[in-house]
Amino acid sequence: MLNSDNWFTEVYPDEGSALSLELTEKLHQEQTPWQKLEVYQTTKFGRLMLLDGCIMLTGRDNFIYHEMMTHPVLCTHPAPQKVLIIGGGDCGCLREVLKHPEVRHAHQVDLDQRVTWASEKFFPELCESNNDRRASLSFTDGVAFIEQAEEGSYDIIIVDSVDPVGQAARLYSKEFYQACYAGLSEDGILIAQSESPLFHKDLIHSMQSRMADVGFKDTTTLFFPQCTYPSGWWSASMAFKAGKPLGFRTVDIETEYYNNDIHQAAQAMPQFMRKVSRSESTSKGE
Amino acid sequence: MLNSDNWFTEVYPDEGSALSLELTEKLHQEQTPWQKLEVYQTTKFGRLMLLDGCIMLTGRDNFIYHEMMTHPVLCTHPAPQKVLIIGGGDCGCLREVLKHPEVRHAHQVDLDQRVTWASEKFFPELCESNNDRRASLSFTDGVAFIEQAEEGSYDIIIVDSVDPVGQAARLYSKEFYQACYAGLSEDGILIAQSESPLFHKDLIHSMQSRMADVGFKDTTTLFFPQCTYPSGWWSASMAFKAGKPLGFRTVDIETEYYNNDIHQAAQAMPQFMRKVSRSESTSKGE
Repeated sequence: MLNSDNWFTEVYPDEGSALSLELTEKLHQEQTPWQKLEVYQTTKFGRLMLLDGCIMLTGRDNFIYHEMMTHPVLCTHPAPQKVLIIGGGDCGCLREVLKHPEVRHAHQVDLDQRVTWASEKFFPELCESNNDRRASLSFTDGVAFIEQAEEGSYDIIIVDSVDPVGQAARLYSKEFYQACYAGLSEDGILIAQSESPLFHKDLIHSMQSRMADVGFKDTTTLFFPQCTYPSGWWSASMAFKAGKPLGFRTVDIETEYYNNDIHQAAQAMPQFMRKVSRSESTSKGE
Repeated sequence: MLNSDNWFTEVYPDEGSALSLELTEKLHQEQTPWQKLEVYQTTKFGRLMLLDGCIMLTGRDNFIYHEMMTHPVLCTHPAPQKVLIIGGGDCGCLREVLKHPEVRHAHQVDLDQRVTWASEKFFPELCESNNDRRASLSFTDGVAFIEQAEEGSYDIIIVDSVDPVGQAARLYSKEFYQACYAGLSEDGILIAQSESPLFHKDLIHSMQSRMADVGFKDTTTLFFPQCTYPSGWWSASMAFKAGKPLGFRTVDIETEYYNNDIHQAAQAMPQFMRKVSRSESTSKGE
């Protein structure tokens, strides 16, 4: 058994599994207006940020998630100039977005300013572009923000949210996707993190169905490893307002996970996921 | 904290992390001549087999591993007729190999007959091809077996081993790869499981260097998710005696993970793995 003084354990009760990380020190704990925020030093995973007891990120493996939430969608858009990030308070997505010279403005909207405060203090490497002249940060409700945004304002909207429980459940709703659709320019693309292919394939499917319902012409799933999220395997769902472009742009940016081959490969759909799509289209056709 | 009566926890001490699965019942425990063998019923992962306290497989996610250890290598060979499986006592690889009609003979060599006994009893779905007229099973030392094999006997050798500790360390040695090279036919292919890209990238690199050292013309890494192995992300290394074929055959077999797109995608190398290869070739070149 693990000694709870030295280990943090996140239990996934619906999946009968749990992940533990070995700790050396608690660096911070507070109850923000929105959630419990903790930061630890681990032995092998760098620093660890928890929100309401769930792993938000570690220093060791966040690079995969942040790169896959940004570079594929940015390289798929022909000329991404205006980018909105909803959630993403750790600023890791913002940093990756700003590696693209085409981007003229990246706006990050997260409810909880304390997450960004903690990231600036404990994960300064993720925040190194916060002062880029193209970046702006708001701390307000992302759903209300996009509902009030001018139509056609953004080329790309990135939804870097926590799991679909509590407040965050609204970021998975049809109404929210409708507002994103309106907020996107004509060839705009929405990308949202969509949980584990092994644990949550029905959620991925229902998210993409909702995206299609509000008018997005195509959807695509991206698959990637993410060690410290449930099952170690993660996904993001892209939705295209004007149909999915055939290819994607090659870019010369510094990455640790992403490259052109990975971009192409991340779109390969495991056979059991194809079966879900197929049985759904069959039942729709009846 | 997890109650140890209801949970099995595998700690990865070198990586400061641990995975736990929730149990309902112990189904079997014995000390075989080689190792401690346990089988449990879990709440959400089907049945669980442990060897010396390490997860060997679960009913829920073994399909990815077994399919990726077999179908890519079989589809890459132009006409795989004779296949040797070293290790693989749970018979999951054997079942997948025998889905290929080109295969005329598949021989499985595992040291520990009790693993196969336990798989036949508790994972009968993995053993459903054990009585195929093309299958044969030996219970003996895999290293000695391949060292004594006639030269050029096998089109494909699959090394489905446990981690490189104790007895199994010999399955990662230059001498073993040399014997595999000799045992393969002219266009033969070796595939070996090669641990986690996140945790063991140096091992992957050194395995492939050893494979090249004994004469294999090319090596390729396959990447795939594997929830219940350390880091949730796994790899296999292929080594080609006569150079890597340009493409691979399309086959019509029933799978849950593998398909043509997945085959292509599994070969995409993350950027940090490219950096390892590059720095190695740079230092070799000096």
